[in-house]
Amino acid sequence: MKFTLVAKDQQSSARAGVLETDHGKIQTPIFMPVGTAGSVKAVHQRELEQDVQAQIILGNTYHLYLRPGIELLEKAGGLHQFNGWKKPILTDSGGYQVYSLAENRKIVEDGVTFKSHIDGSRHLFTPESVMDIQRTIGADIIMAFDECTPYPCDYSYAKTSMELTHQWLKRCVARINSTEPKYGYEQALFPIVQGSVYKDLREQSAEFIASQNQQGNAIGGLSVGEPHEEMYAMTSLVCGILPAGKPRYLMGVGTPENILECIALGVDMFDCVMPTRNARNGMLFTTQGIINIRNEKWKDDLSPIDETLGGYASTFYSKAYLRHLIINKEILGAQIATLQNLTFYLWLVKEARKQIEAGTFTGWKNQMVKKVSQRL
Amino acid sequence: MKFTLVAKDQQSSARAGVLETDHGKIQTPIFMPVGTAGSVKAVHQRELEQDVQAQIILGNTYHLYLRPGIELLEKAGGLHQFNGWKKPILTDSGGYQVYSLAENRKIVEDGVTFKSHIDGSRHLFTPESVMDIQRTIGADIIMAFDECTPYPCDYSYAKTSMELTHQWLKRCVARINSTEPKYGYEQALFPIVQGSVYKDLREQSAEFIASQNQQGNAIGGLSVGEPHEEMYAMTSLVCGILPAGKPRYLMGVGTPENILECIALGVDMFDCVMPTRNARNGMLFTTQGIINIRNEKWKDDLSPIDETLGGYASTFYSKAYLRHLIINKEILGAQIATLQNLTFYLWLVKEARKQIEAGTFTGWKNQMVKKVSQRL
Repeated sequence: MKFTLVAKDQQSSARAGVLETDHGKIQTPIFMPVGTAGSVKAVHQRELEQDVQAQIILGNTYHLYLRPGIELLEKAGGLHQFNGWKKPILTDSGGYQVYSLAENRKIVEDGVTFKSHIDGSRHLFTPESVMDIQRTIGADIIMAFDECTPYPCDYSYAKTSMELTHQWLKRCVARINSTEPKYGYEQALFPIVQGSVYKDLREQSAEFIASQNQQGNAIGGLSVGEPHEEMYAMTSLVCGILPAGKPRYLMGVGTPENILECIALGVDMFDCVMPTRNARNGMLFTTQGIINIRNEKWKDDLSPIDETLGGYASTFYSKAYLRHLIINKEILGAQIATLQNLTFYLWLVKEARKQIEAGTFTGWKNQMVKKVSQRL
Repeated sequence: MKFTLVAKDQQSSARAGVLETDHGKIQTPIFMPVGTAGSVKAVHQRELEQDVQAQIILGNTYHLYLRPGIELLEKAGGLHQFNGWKKPILTDSGGYQVYSLAENRKIVEDGVTFKSHIDGSRHLFTPESVMDIQRTIGADIIMAFDECTPYPCDYSYAKTSMELTHQWLKRCVARINSTEPKYGYEQALFPIVQGSVYKDLREQSAEFIASQNQQGNAIGGLSVGEPHEEMYAMTSLVCGILPAGKPRYLMGVGTPENILECIALGVDMFDCVMPTRNARNGMLFTTQGIINIRNEKWKDDLSPIDETLGGYASTFYSKAYLRHLIINKEILGAQIATLQNLTFYLWLVKEARKQIEAGTFTGWKNQMVKKVSQRL
């Protein structure tokens, strides 16, 4: 895996780069659509490639491990073969989902025991097993097994948790170093900075993560309920410590505004369920701002969903038609809204990249943040 | 509207024709995907045209009248403009849905009063109002307002009901003759033969319907629970009376086997929710037979869904992947299965047409009926 910076903004820490993987090149900054159980919900694989123009998608280890299961994924030759998505895939470590199980999980020294949300069966995730699972899923980018702290989180818990994450990281690195890629192509490990919203912990964690010298680095434990200012402060701090020559991935972020602000802070990669999940509830992200399509005001608006954005779903269907579909729970409503939102998110990061290359990013970003976060 | 017969099978009553409408030509025999509320569920309009190769779709007057409502459809310039489907559309009369409301509807002399299944609001459908509604929806083919009898149905009820349907038909014809097409293109009325499973009533009804001299004719009240033999007997009888020079539409039929057998009896047009509704439950119609994809036996079958059929959904995705999606209620599962089933149904009628033209229909049909109705 090779990361090359091609441009850097003069007024911010924004940068444009190219991340080369064995499944193709990724132009950064990039947004990664979330394909929880091996499918980006309501989107065909060819639409993801041709309409959304996604360059990399994310899979969730917890979900894929439970269903369809590792055995079938291995038989298929990995997730790329199973779902037909031939470009890069990043998998999370399953940690975030496991912690969300609350009562149904327990952190033990070796890892985390949990009960499946599907059938209540008991499982154990360890740093080693999670590396093996991601190798078998066939991820191009494997995430370290960490603990994602909630917000708010007291200092002593945040510190203990960060130390556990660092211990587990050493085990992840050892496991990755002692095993081979499963299907012949490279599988890179990205460690994750934790430390909640505590400056000293974040610094300490970023330094530790950087010292591991992996091919990319991630920032976790943000966008979990903290004020945006805290998110930006921590992101800025951590980006200043993580090596400039490697991609930085801010996990689970966020709104179009969050993404633009964090690009300005030096982040290269993003993922979030917001464009897909909110689409299914009728929340549209457009080049003109945010639309709640269920609102009465769109009832007889026969204009295209987002003419400026262009592309099939945005220009072929009208707001009134989409509103009718969403209100009546027609599956096509989820399909159209998801295409709109993902196409917009990918357009947004592509446009950001162009502006960075043109040296006009900061001015454009300040304008665009206002535009895309307004409610229409 | 012009209907031209281009070939006739020598060993059966099957025929191939072309129905010309102002929204394009329809090659018969044809299957019409059902787009209840202005959307064929889980299918984009471009997929319907390019992948499924649908030539005409059906809309349901009852659903469209309630939502999005006639006012919005009129403002849009009709359903074609509202949903973007530019080829022909046929609308049912709403009668079938209204009768399904059971307790919540009452037949009065003027028409039928009913309570909306959505909000309980009261409405009245009359032959005149239903013609006006279909004109406003913008159907190329408008169905007469009839009563669809259930099965079983005693003789005296079937006779009274048929007489009411005939009375209502006269009012439908009068209304159509005294009103203009709403959007400049032709809107043809198809009357509907009723009479349950009683030979004399069906004969009487078919003669009355034929005497109205409309541009096409339909057979209703079948595929409502009667044995297939009864359906075929009534269809054969009625096809022998309805004029050969006009298209014959058998409403709500059916399985691939039913369609092939009824093509042999002289039917030209079909619609049914089966390929779309059953798709969402994991029942696949393929060139090799019927698959319940939820079955354990497909769990690790990584072969394409239906390689022989060809096309995107059938060849790009595997059975194991589709099974995973359907079992986990992923929206993409419904999308793939629906594309498979509709592509298959349209392939089946197209293939039937080729065989009629080649003079090989009957032998092919007898083979194909066995193949497509077997459970894999």
